[in-house]
Order: sequence, then C-alpha cells, then structure tokens
Amino acid sequence: MAEINIRDLAKELNLSIGTVSKALRDSHEISALTKEKVFALARQLNYTPNPYASSLRGKKSKTIGVVIPEIADSFFSHAIKGIESVAQKKGYHVLIYLTEESFLKEEFILSEFKSGRVDGVLLSISRETSNSRHIEELKKKGIPLVLFDRTEEEIPTTKIITNDLESSYKATHHLIKRGCKKISFLSISRHLSINNKRIEGFLKALNDHLAGACKNNIVDCTNDDKQNQAIVHKILERAERPDGIICSVEKLTIPVYLSCRGLQLNIPKDIKIISFSNSEAAPVMNPSLTTVTQPAYEMGKRAATILFKAVEKKNFKMPNENIIIPSSLIIRNSTD
Amino acid sequence: MAEINIRDLAKELNLSIGTVSKALRDSHEISALTKEKVFALARQLNYTPNPYASSLRGKKSKTIGVVIPEIADSFFSHAIKGIESVAQKKGYHVLIYLTEESFLKEEFILSEFKSGRVDGVLLSISRETSNSRHIEELKKKGIPLVLFDRTEEEIPTTKIITNDLESSYKATHHLIKRGCKKISFLSISRHLSINNKRIEGFLKALNDHLAGACKNNIVDCTNDDKQNQAIVHKILERAERPDGIICSVEKLTIPVYLSCRGLQLNIPKDIKIISFSNSEAAPVMNPSLTTVTQPAYEMGKRAATILFKAVEKKNFKMPNENIIIPSSLIIRNSTD
Repeated sequence: MAEINIRDLAKELNLSIGTVSKALRDSHEISALTKEKVFALARQLNYTPNPYASSLRGKKSKTIGVVIPEIADSFFSHAIKGIESVAQKKGYHVLIYLTEESFLKEEFILSEFKSGRVDGVLLSISRETSNSRHIEELKKKGIPLVLFDRTEEEIPTTKIITNDLESSYKATHHLIKRGCKKISFLSISRHLSINNKRIEGFLKALNDHLAGACKNNIVDCTNDDKQNQAIVHKILERAERPDGIICSVEKLTIPVYLSCRGLQLNIPKDIKIISFSNSEAAPVMNPSLTTVTQPAYEMGKRAATILFKAVEKKNFKMPNENIIIPSSLIIRNSTD
Repeated sequence: MAEINIRDLAKELNLSIGTVSKALRDSHEISALTKEKVFALARQLNYTPNPYASSLRGKKSKTIGVVIPEIADSFFSHAIKGIESVAQKKGYHVLIYLTEESFLKEEFILSEFKSGRVDGVLLSISRETSNSRHIEELKKKGIPLVLFDRTEEEIPTTKIITNDLESSYKATHHLIKRGCKKISFLSISRHLSINNKRIEGFLKALNDHLAGACKNNIVDCTNDDKQNQAIVHKILERAERPDGIICSVEKLTIPVYLSCRGLQLNIPKDIKIISFSNSEAAPVMNPSLTTVTQPAYEMGKRAATILFKAVEKKNFKMPNENIIIPSSLIIRNSTD
C-alpha cells in the first residue's frame, strides 16, 4: 500500500498543503469545520503524521528517554521503577533504550534524540564508552540530561551516583576481617569511572589492612558470560588460588558460583564471595550471597526528579554536581 | 539555542530549499561542490536532519525494532542475543523497546514505527494486551512483523513459539509422579495465550493423572513483586496448603522461595517447585530449581531470520504460521 502523505490529503480535500498542515497542527488560523474534515480524512486514509514534526516545532513530546547498558542487571530494573514513579505523576511516557554495552549503539540512540524525540534523557553509559562527544552534542541541542550510576565525569551536568569507592573499601575490609589474604577483584571495564572507583577502594583497603597488595589481584572480565566463566575458572585453578572474590557487577556472580561448584570449592569455607548486586535472588542462593546493594530505586527517583525540573522550567540551570546516595553491605552466608 | 532548519541553511548559502534538501540527501542532481558547501555549513551550525525523513522517502533505516514486555526475565536477554547474532551478520541495528507490560506503551511504540522508523519489528506482547488493532495497523503500513514467545493468534503473520501446553503438561505430570496431590499454578495474565496454554496443559495433566482437578488451583498473580509475595504467602498459609507449585514465569520464583523460607517450609520436602525460567541462577539456588527452560536464543534467532527475509525481499509474503521450538524440563533439587 502506498504511503499517504499530506499532499494526498490536500488534493483529496481540494485544500492547499499549507492549510492541511496547519489543520493537522491544530492551528488557530484554520476553522473548526476545516480541521474536522482534515482529521476525518486523515483517519479514514490511515494517515500517520510524522510524530517528531510536532516536537521539531517546539512542542513537548511528553516523553523522556532512559538509556541503559544492560537488560540482565537488577540495578536497572529497580532504577526504572524509581524513574517511572516520578514520570507517572508528571504524566510523561518513559521510553527505555538498551545500548547492550555498545558505544556505537549509544551514539546512535543519542543522535536520534537530537531531533526532539524526547524532552529529556537519563543516561547510564556503556562499558565501551570512552569519549563523550555524543553526550556533549546532545547537551548542545538544549536537551536536559542527567547521568546516573555509570557516569562520565567531564560532562557538566547532575550525576546521581553511589559511594563506589567507600563501599568497595568496606566490602574488601569485610573479607580481610573474615580471614581472606588473597582477594581477587573482577573488573568489568577500565573505561568506566564507577569500575575504577571500586578498584580504588579495593586497593586502598588492601593497602591499609594487608601489606603487599599487588595489581595482579585485578582480573579483567568481558561482556560475555561464557568467556567470563572461563576467566574465573582459570584463576580458581591457579596454585595461588584466591580465598576471596569481589564481583564488581551482578552478572559475574553466577559464573563464579558455577566455577566454584565445578571445581568442588566450598563457599565460604574455601573461598568467600561478595557481589555488587541488587538481585532479589541473593538470599535464596546456595549459599546466600553477601552483596553491596545499591540504592537503585532511590537513584532512579532522584535522577528523574532533577530531570523534570529542567524539562518543566525553561530557564532551569542544571547544576554540575554529584549527588551521592550510599550503598549498603549486606552480609550473608557466602562470606560467613 | 534556536533550532537550525533547512530554510536557514538555504538562506545562508543563497540556494533554494530544494537544492539544499537534495544536497543533504546526496542526490546525483547536485554538484559535488555544492554538496560540500551544504555539508560544511550543516556541520558548522550543528544542523540535525530529521533522521526519519530518509526512511519516509523509502530508504531503509537499517534498523529493526524489538519490542519486549520485561527487563527482568532471562528469556528476553537470551532471545535478544539470538536476534543480535542474525542482525549483526546483516549489518542492521537492533533497537530494543520495553513496554513494561503496559498496553498503552506498546500502542505508543508501535504507532511510532508506522512512520518508517524501523524496517521490521519483532514483538512479544505485554500482559495487558487484549486487542490487536495497533498490531494490525502496523501490518497495514507494510512493515514486516514477526511475533515471538508471547503472540496474538489472530494476527496473520509468522509466530515463533514453544510447546507451552505440552511442557506445562510434562511439568505437572512430573510433580504428580513425585507425589504431589495439591498443585497450584501461578498464572500471570489471562489475556496471554501463552499463559492460557500453560494453564490448559496443567489442567489436562491434573485430569489425566489426578481425578478431581479443580480450577481453584489456578492463582492469579500481578505485575508487582510485593503483591505477588503477599498472594503466595496467603496460599501457603491455607489449611489446604499446596504441596507443589508451578510458576508460569521466571519472576514468580523468588517470591515463592522467599515465602517458603518465611514460613519455614522445606523445598522439596514440604513443597515442590517448578518454574518456567531461563535463569542461569537456577542451578545455584537453594535448593537448585527445576525449570521448564525455553529455547530462548534459538527462538530469537529464528524470529530474526524470518523477519530479515521480509525486510530484504520486497515481494516476500510472510507465512501465517506457528513455528514451534520445544522447551526442556530440567529436573533439579526443588522437586527431587
């Protein structure tokens, strides 16, 4: 079926294209009767107006875009609930976009937003993102932006984060107090400041409480579950096997548990495990998992609250600041 | 900052709007020199062309849209990997949209696609979706569509599904063979044919192997984790407590495990649990979880393969058929 366009409508109604266009935009220059005729025919012929045309003309799309890197991380499902709780009250749609940890996809999604598709953006960057030109460009277009969880420090906007350094320090110190002497930190990406802060906290705790901390304790993981399991398997087979592991993201937990099981290592007797995780499965795992749990819902809620200030107030100047909401260390059987 | 439009570019360059428009579209009618001038100014003024304009003119967007209901279900993360494996080979972008189980959001997302935003759509419907007008309208626009997992039977297109009735029958029969006599089925939505087929298989197995099956064994759950936990808690406190539970979706598992723990019910001694789940955590839960595991990756891959046939071949007629890929019952300690 041929696409119906505004020209077809104009021809059929014996009106000028300008008149039809104005009628579709509900312009006060056009009579109610004409508008009614135009809308009736548009409906009848199944005419789809370009949904972005109205926002290009300065109207609000009543939509905010949320860009997140991962589908399989409980942090984001909780954060989205926090975002939705604010958006619903404001009468806004929330559209969620997944970058699947791809920088190219993140660039592509943000470039689409530049045409006025959304009124504001909440972004948590991908593990591959090492430059921020695409984010700068979005900001230049005047589209309000708040970063949450995984942020880019150079971008002058509000960032909702948690106390990554301190909570990683606390987690590491907890393992040391439980007797661990050879702790490995499973890192997810050296591009991500959130990951690097967790590494910093880890190294600081090793340094403060265990002399002779060495960088070799940091293990670089990938975005692929199978590869990660092979990586973990390898470090667990070393003669100098770690007696403690810190998973810097939730998705590393299952590969670690499965590797321990495969090698018949007892958690927590042979090896103790802590994960940065918001998984509701933590208490019913075997053994139950000690976690650093982020205030995900609260972070989403705060990020959305600040974004809406900028979306709703024309002259609102988004503060360039970090808002830090602390995480909690929840001790369970995997370290006890 | 005022939005730069094509008119501004034309004025600045002393060219007609038509010439600038053609230059931006890389038309052969325009000289290389003119094109260069237009692109240089467009870059300098940070002009963003409407990204959909090109697709409205019939060009491919080289993007497929994947619309899924849930972020926190491993089925979808595996299915997406299957879809990506095909799209990457074809050089297409995959954009993922979440309806978060909302019919309104699903309608909104599909209505956007009608403007040529994507070249094809893979859809798994929301739990609220009870009519299919919005899907019909997308199809009328000539945009290829394949349904997967959660489908709508009336839509005449290819549907990639699993053997829901049979696998639910098998799961129920497994519980009966293990001695269960009072089995509850936790249902997620009576609108979803996938859910109803699982109910059908459940009732058929009760009827075949346990006389006196009654509809009261079906418990309607919601989309809210806390509400679900309260619902499960209530049925577990009944005098006539179930001795077996089938979770029709992955997300019901944790509420059930937590409720059993709260009431000090031993799994599998006091109560046996099976979930429809693709969670990688199943083997490391306490106890490890018996699952009906769907061929998620394969389903995503097959859905994408068929979609690309329609996207790439102009006269391809999408067959109106169900492609069924069977699920597996994986027996673990929660029923053993």
